Amino acid sequence: MTHPAHLHPDRLFPASEPARSVARELYPAVRDLPIVSPHGHTDPAWFAGNARFSTPTALFLTPDHYVLRMLRSRGLSYDALGIPRKDGKSIETDGRAAWRLFASNYHLFAGTPSKTWIDHSLHAVFGITEELSAATADSIYDAIDSQLGTPELLPRAILDRFNVEVITTTEFALDRLPHHHSMEADGYLGRVRTTYRPDDVTNPERAGWIDRIREFAELTGENISTWNGLLNAHRRRREFFRRFGAVATDHGVPTAQTADLAPIEKQALLDRLLTGQYSNEDADLFRAQMMTEMAGLAVEDGLVMQLHAGARRNTDPSLLAERGADLGADIPSRVNYVDGLQPLLARFGNEPNLRLIMFTLDETNYARELAPMAGFWPSLLIGPPWWFHDSPQGIRRYLDQVVETAGFYNLAGFNDDTRALLSIPARHDVWRREVCGFLGRWVGENRLSKSSAEEIARHLSYQAAKDAYRIA
Amino acid sequence: MTHPAHLHPDRLFPASEPARSVARELYPAVRDLPIVSPHGHTDPAWFAGNARFSTPTALFLTPDHYVLRMLRSRGLSYDALGIPRKDGKSIETDGRAAWRLFASNYHLFAGTPSKTWIDHSLHAVFGITEELSAATADSIYDAIDSQLGTPELLPRAILDRFNVEVITTTEFALDRLPHHHSMEADGYLGRVRTTYRPDDVTNPERAGWIDRIREFAELTGENISTWNGLLNAHRRRREFFRRFGAVATDHGVPTAQTADLAPIEKQALLDRLLTGQYSNEDADLFRAQMMTEMAGLAVEDGLVMQLHAGARRNTDPSLLAERGADLGADIPSRVNYVDGLQPLLARFGNEPNLRLIMFTLDETNYARELAPMAGFWPSLLIGPPWWFHDSPQGIRRYLDQVVETAGFYNLAGFNDDTRALLSIPARHDVWRREVCGFLGRWVGENRLSKSSAEEIARHLSYQAAKDAYRIA
Amino acid sequence: MTHPAHLHPDRLFPASEPARSVARELYPAVRDLPIVSPHGHTDPAWFAGNARFSTPTALFLTPDHYVLRMLRSRGLSYDALGIPRKDGKSIETDGRAAWRLFASNYHLFAGTPSKTWIDHSLHAVFGITEELSAATADSIYDAIDSQLGTPELLPRAILDRFNVEVITTTEFALDRLPHHHSMEADGYLGRVRTTYRPDDVTNPERAGWIDRIREFAELTGENISTWNGLLNAHRRRREFFRRFGAVATDHGVPTAQTADLAPIEKQALLDRLLTGQYSNEDADLFRAQMMTEMAGLAVEDGLVMQLHAGARRNTDPSLLAERGADLGADIPSRVNYVDGLQPLLARFGNEPNLRLIMFTLDETNYARELAPMAGFWPSLLIGPPWWFHDSPQGIRRYLDQVVETAGFYNLAGFNDDTRALLSIPARHDVWRREVCGFLGRWVGENRLSKSSAEEIARHLSYQAAKDAYRIA
Repeated sequence: MTHPAHLHPDRLFPASEPARSVARELYPAVRDLPIVSPHGHTDPAWFAGNARFSTPTALFLTPDHYVLRMLRSRGLSYDALGIPRKDGKSIETDGRAAWRLFASNYHLFAGTPSKTWIDHSLHAVFGITEELSAATADSIYDAIDSQLGTPELLPRAILDRFNVEVITTTEFALDRLPHHHSMEADGYLGRVRTTYRPDDVTNPERAGWIDRIREFAELTGENISTWNGLLNAHRRRREFFRRFGAVATDHGVPTAQTADLAPIEKQALLDRLLTGQYSNEDADLFRAQMMTEMAGLAVEDGLVMQLHAGARRNTDPSLLAERGADLGADIPSRVNYVDGLQPLLARFGNEPNLRLIMFTLDETNYARELAPMAGFWPSLLIGPPWWFHDSPQGIRRYLDQVVETAGFYNLAGFNDDTRALLSIPARHDVWRREVCGFLGRWVGENRLSKSSAEEIARHLSYQAAKDAYRIA
Repeated sequence: MTHPAHLHPDRLFPASEPARSVARELYPAVRDLPIVSPHGHTDPAWFAGNARFSTPTALFLTPDHYVLRMLRSRGLSYDALGIPRKDGKSIETDGRAAWRLFASNYHLFAGTPSKTWIDHSLHAVFGITEELSAATADSIYDAIDSQLGTPELLPRAILDRFNVEVITTTEFALDRLPHHHSMEADGYLGRVRTTYRPDDVTNPERAGWIDRIREFAELTGENISTWNGLLNAHRRRREFFRRFGAVATDHGVPTAQTADLAPIEKQALLDRLLTGQYSNEDADLFRAQMMTEMAGLAVEDGLVMQLHAGARRNTDPSLLAERGADLGADIPSRVNYVDGLQPLLARFGNEPNLRLIMFTLDETNYARELAPMAGFWPSLLIGPPWWFHDSPQGIRRYLDQVVETAGFYNLAGFNDDTRALLSIPARHDVWRREVCGFLGRWVGENRLSKSSAEEIARHLSYQAAKDAYRIA
Repeated sequence: MTHPAHLHPDRLFPASEPARSVARELYPAVRDLPIVSPHGHTDPAWFAGNARFSTPTALFLTPDHYVLRMLRSRGLSYDALGIPRKDGKSIETDGRAAWRLFASNYHLFAGTPSKTWIDHSLHAVFGITEELSAATADSIYDAIDSQLGTPELLPRAILDRFNVEVITTTEFALDRLPHHHSMEADGYLGRVRTTYRPDDVTNPERAGWIDRIREFAELTGENISTWNGLLNAHRRRREFFRRFGAVATDHGVPTAQTADLAPIEKQALLDRLLTGQYSNEDADLFRAQMMTEMAGLAVEDGLVMQLHAGARRNTDPSLLAERGADLGADIPSRVNYVDGLQPLLARFGNEPNLRLIMFTLDETNYARELAPMAGFWPSLLIGPPWWFHDSPQGIRRYLDQVVETAGFYNLAGFNDDTRALLSIPARHDVWRREVCGFLGRWVGENRLSKSSAEEIARHLSYQAAKDAYRIA
């Protein structure tokens, strides 16, 4: 039997022997391991409400900024793709028309992970083996649409079908977690968990910070005008999030900078911020100091700390004004983890209860910073390749550059980090294939025994994530 | 039949199956496609005058700073290699003696693209299959020399023989384009085109800028003491260059910094510059602002904008004083495209008529900056690997790092960017071989279908450059 | 006969044909070449005294910060591993207990060069073929221990057995070189040589600098309160070190910054430093200026200058306070060689007698800076991959990124740079295997002839280091 290349059962494995055979031998033992998804951005409403997805376009196109940005880069307009405008001007509202536009430009995705994920989803979820194109646009649209109403396509059924053992969502500090509340009530909590992401109150440069910090005070009953009160407010919210399954916090920061100020300096900084009269440097310093405070609170309560450093957000101001954030205009920037984490690590780096997982969009960090740091500090682990780098070549560069210095056991396994539910099994599958391919190459070069490779493949596919995130 | 390794018909293809066979299948369909050379530094006098090249040394050695620098790095003197001195002191003037020195050190070039290009030229142009060495120095010199006088070796015949469909030269803003004028007269213009490179008037740190900016005013009849007059002068020269076939502008800049000042700030900056009393920061800011102005003019007239960022020029001041520029002392430096282009893109990034092609000497830009940016902005394309990185491994790192995020269709195809006429077919051949090898590996890993690979190979070998540069 | 993977005779060679066969053909010609170890940190007392090593733990574990750091990173304590504390509190003193802890965690080293080196040493030195683990801990401990008292395991016998032609140690400027003195007396000097590393007097930020600079004056009889006197003191010590075989100097610097101040500025800087009232910028500037002075002295006396740039030392202040330096807390940082060396090169870069070997912990330097610079300046060579990057993948990235621009003949061959005597043959073996593998891949791609590959393999395995360090 021949397979179309985009669904070939050996896809991504090394092309040449003997690495290819080793990868093929390793893969079956990891292919069907449960999925642990300890960091991501799926909507908890899906799992709480378990309602059907509306249309193929709403499932695959409109919310996927990876796809949207590529189409935009080749001149397609967000109006024609049906992306809402703030000014209410007319956009394409026919989902099928937007879908056709997407399908007829699908060749643009050749070689991208987006295509790999979509092809995988169409096949694994909907049984579609034809490739998306102008010619197949309608038939594929209809095939998806007809299945979306079936019980097998409801969100919880999808978690079952793909053997998702645990999945975490990500909520801001002020979020009341209504969906997790409802899942607590019906016993689904635990399989779905929240994550504490306090960027809304730790980043003074987000619009509306001063209002939110006041809401933070009201919500927690703490006096956030003192530094200790502010920390107490975080303590309360962390405790609240832990009740709803949180095992981790997450921090999206432009740089990896941390700080360790004296108490009097911290209070003076907070005082300036609360007046609204502060400089950009004050905002930077507050974010930096808050990272060290979060590490201190992590030592207290054991939540695993995630640092996602290096995204320059909203680089297209006109798009932001026109339609909002998260539409593809975030671009990586340089990150300096060595100097950045120094104050935090000097303070808490040897605390047995601290665990900090480092993510970066700057691949030069891998060999120069992350691997040496994780290979020394007991508190540090290296997160998997993130965002633009969560791709076959991205995973290869990552393993190439971190393993020799950090070993395999200072890695945090895999995160899918996605908003797109159906891409989760596809992304985990790419990771598992690439891990098998990497190990296959090394076994082929007599650098690892096959038994050691089997153990490592299983670890990186499943247990590493549970260990890293302290998921029992 | 056996081939010497340096001329093996499979050279550069993947060594192992199945990638090797796929590359061998893909290559014949692209090998003989016409050459489109949309950016380079050949001398327009060659094509206008169509006179014979003088000697083998003048053809292969003296003008090739890649070759000269390597010989110098191993202790050979530029005097002995016949490179003219400004002080008129004696240098080697016997071309054959310099050639022998080059030939007897040819082993130093093992593994370099220079050797690949020279070997290719000696074979494809002169039918020479022996490798250059002390032993073959004279016989190869004589073989070249005897052919240089034949009609087949005249510049236009070389363009014919290698199927060069279009080639662009690069001239400064004040250049009167006499050779293009003469080609307009004899109907050769169009196959040979100029490119507008206004660094001579946009970079106040080039010696003699103030004199040239006055000449710019005289030449255009514009009052360059006002900002609008300065832009009008550029408008006139761009129009003049377009008459001589220009489809693009080119900007050699130390950094990718751009600026978007208010009108009053621009005028104040220009005022300071014209007095001659200005700081390094003023010069930086002027260059940065001029890039944004050039983008604005490109929106008006449709010329494609090329940014070549990151060369630190003339790092050997004694060599510069002794013999001048372009003798191998230019070294790459770090580039920050994300922050650098921000002002320009915020202003013009979504203009449908803007096209900006990004080149860098800092490979860390590929995955972190160029691919994410080109995968979002409709105005941006990624130029091919440039200068030191225009090499087999350089092309592999480039494709590895840009394709997954930018796709294949946000790439600008290939540029040879050379002063060495005979290296043009050699360089395009290396690119085409590497593209076939890259695609062969991915087909071998079942990541692309063979039909998709064929389409992409043809696109990247020919059509991509025509599309990128708007060559009809 | 089957081999355990960790001792496979083809280990590290390319997995696939034809590259694998070429590597296997190249390797025998380089495997047994003499070892030239021109930079390292072995203890000269070993070679002077030729006394037996004490225990397996003292040989393999306690002094190896690569191993210690990895164990620490997974939560093992330095107390339990027997690393002495400054406060005299109790630590594990039973070498066998620490060894068992190491052995039972040996799986953490899968994929690391440390495992490759240790496996190689256990086999090549002690004839042990079993892999280290909890189960084999005691039997391997006993096997090593029983051999350590034999004549074959004395330091000089180890140099003989592994065909070490010459090995250099590294001493500070104030070191009286007693062990080299004793080797001079018994005729062993020459095979073992010292290296002049004046960081103790060139870096004002090292604790106790002011006392040492006074000791420097007393030791040399020079007036170090004048700049010329300070240089004369260095001249005298360089001469003294040359008497004990020194062919090189070595400079461990946080950045590659150099400076070229006017005489009056130098004296003013020295005056400030000697008062003890100086800024961090003064200290940076002094280090930077001293690098240029060292280049000037190298022009005079021909010692080869080594620059090891980019280690951020002692990033864990609590560990430093508790147990001291060199325990795994040094982390790489970014390096800028282009701007950094500019003042030094502008002054001395074309001096025929200057040779400067560049080492970096920032791999982004390879293609962007080191290869272009070494491919131009006759005084510059590129040192081999250093520290974290001295590993199979590290060597591959290095060769991939430097060869095309610098060629093979601007490389300084291999340095083991180790404190661990038994790792020396293992490290040279990895380098030689990787060189054969790299060349095997290129021969397989018809980029090099086999005869050229043979010549290059031999050169990079042996002669390149002798040439680079001017070892007759």
